[in-house]
Amino acid sequence: MAEAAQPYRHLIRVPYADVDQMKFVYYANYLVYFEMARTGLLRNAGVPYSVLEKRGVLLPVMTSHCEYRLPAHYEDLLAVDTRCTPFRGARFRIEYTVWRVGTGADETPAEETLLAEGYTDHVCMSPDGSVLRPDPVFKRIAQG
Amino acid sequence: MAEAAQPYRHLIRVPYADVDQMKFVYYANYLVYFEMARTGLLRNAGVPYSVLEKRGVLLPVMTSHCEYRLPAHYEDLLAVDTRCTPFRGARFRIEYTVWRVGTGADETPAEETLLAEGYTDHVCMSPDGSVLRPDPVFKRIAQG
Amino acid sequence: MAEAAQPYRHLIRVPYADVDQMKFVYYANYLVYFEMARTGLLRNAGVPYSVLEKRGVLLPVMTSHCEYRLPAHYEDLLAVDTRCTPFRGARFRIEYTVWRVGTGADETPAEETLLAEGYTDHVCMSPDGSVLRPDPVFKRIAQG
Amino acid sequence: MAEAAQPYRHLIRVPYADVDQMKFVYYANYLVYFEMARTGLLRNAGVPYSVLEKRGVLLPVMTSHCEYRLPAHYEDLLAVDTRCTPFRGARFRIEYTVWRVGTGADETPAEETLLAEGYTDHVCMSPDGSVLRPDPVFKRIAQG
Repeated sequence: MAEAAQPYRHLIRVPYADVDQMKFVYYANYLVYFEMARTGLLRNAGVPYSVLEKRGVLLPVMTSHCEYRLPAHYEDLLAVDTRCTPFRGARFRIEYTVWRVGTGADETPAEETLLAEGYTDHVCMSPDGSVLRPDPVFKRIAQG
Repeated sequence: MAEAAQPYRHLIRVPYADVDQMKFVYYANYLVYFEMARTGLLRNAGVPYSVLEKRGVLLPVMTSHCEYRLPAHYEDLLAVDTRCTPFRGARFRIEYTVWRVGTGADETPAEETLLAEGYTDHVCMSPDGSVLRPDPVFKRIAQG
Repeated sequence: MAEAAQPYRHLIRVPYADVDQMKFVYYANYLVYFEMARTGLLRNAGVPYSVLEKRGVLLPVMTSHCEYRLPAHYEDLLAVDTRCTPFRGARFRIEYTVWRVGTGADETPAEETLLAEGYTDHVCMSPDGSVLRPDPVFKRIAQG
Repeated sequence: MAEAAQPYRHLIRVPYADVDQMKFVYYANYLVYFEMARTGLLRNAGVPYSVLEKRGVLLPVMTSHCEYRLPAHYEDLLAVDTRCTPFRGARFRIEYTVWRVGTGADETPAEETLLAEGYTDHVCMSPDGSVLRPDPVFKRIAQG
């Protein structure tokens, strides 16, 4: 039986732009981090999303969900572990786990801290708005 | 038996900044629209959030969720209907429904179009990070 | 001799999303406020930019400049006074002055406070990237 | 006579979030890229800005300026060359040049393309709002 695929890990340094007056990363920015990680996941699989889009495969988001556990701070180094779940039908889910793996002052903390978890649901869509079967790259990523 | 409170309606004109190369409002911006509507809900109830925060009541988000039905476009006029649900305990939910009620070219379309629905879960928190009981304004809003 | 046109005034309520951990509106957001005001200027002149764009007139920015005088804060009510300057040739300038005209706690402060001043330079461009003469609406706005 | 310092080069992969419906990076995001590069410049000099800020040295922006030469696109790899100019008095300037050094489809284009140039002027400020002399790290960076 196939084992689950290893997640793809994407690193992000938190910019000042993303932090609010509680000194927390503002909650909507986690969805941007999910998108950056999704882009990285596809690049890493050899099919950059900008190439996929030029082939006529758009990837709109149908649902987003995020659980915020602990705040991220300015200049933290975040790791977003990203995996595509197995699917049937047109819709599929990408899952994300966000860890603090460094800070502005300390690049190698003793342990990683879980900050947030979430997912996005997608369909593949043609430029004229028709729903397509998921592009094979997603099946390949989901199977590892 | 108490009737549900009328939702508060918040209007937003979509800026160019928020629209992506599919010509859709980028998905993370809906969470910003939820926040603008939340700020409006509290102002409308006579307790601006900036005042609440100066009194030592922070309002971090614990969960966000959004279902995207149809895309919003540049210069659309959006209405975000916002309500606070009844609660027990420290955690409470604010719900949002986003409608297109106008476009750049047409201020009075024949009907409103549902674009997105979602919610955010919150606690009230002191500046030192302790969880507080929900501020009474939320109970008042929830009861209408 | 023609008098200068009255500037168009655009109102913006500062969202939590836009404020950084100094409790100041993050500097890049002033360029978004300029764009919102520019959109309002064109709507106010009867030619919404979304309509102009559908007619094949794009409005890329060639230069941006902003002087930051005093910080804006969360839930401040800002007024962006916006005017198009007279022009010859393809390039034209829109100027902006940002005032605080209210706060979260006080809708009617005794006086308006100057927060920032800036400008953006533009050309009109076709979708294939050719520079066009400025659309007549800009000349009309510039003359008041 | 001292030679000018070598600029610090900061790499940025353009996210989908930053691109508008002209398929260009939206103009305000260049100021965010400048900030990311500024953070990198300080880290690279051994004084992370998050550490500087905890020591009570804030770095508000007094002026921003950007000239947009050619558009950046989704998934482009950008290099922001960043240098601090020599200064007298409290105010100092950081200069930025943005190059495209890769695209989503091609990691090693034949040449780098100039996309934008700009600067930001700063003072060092204490948390109570007093202007400070520039922190020595800026003099050190300016001298190379």
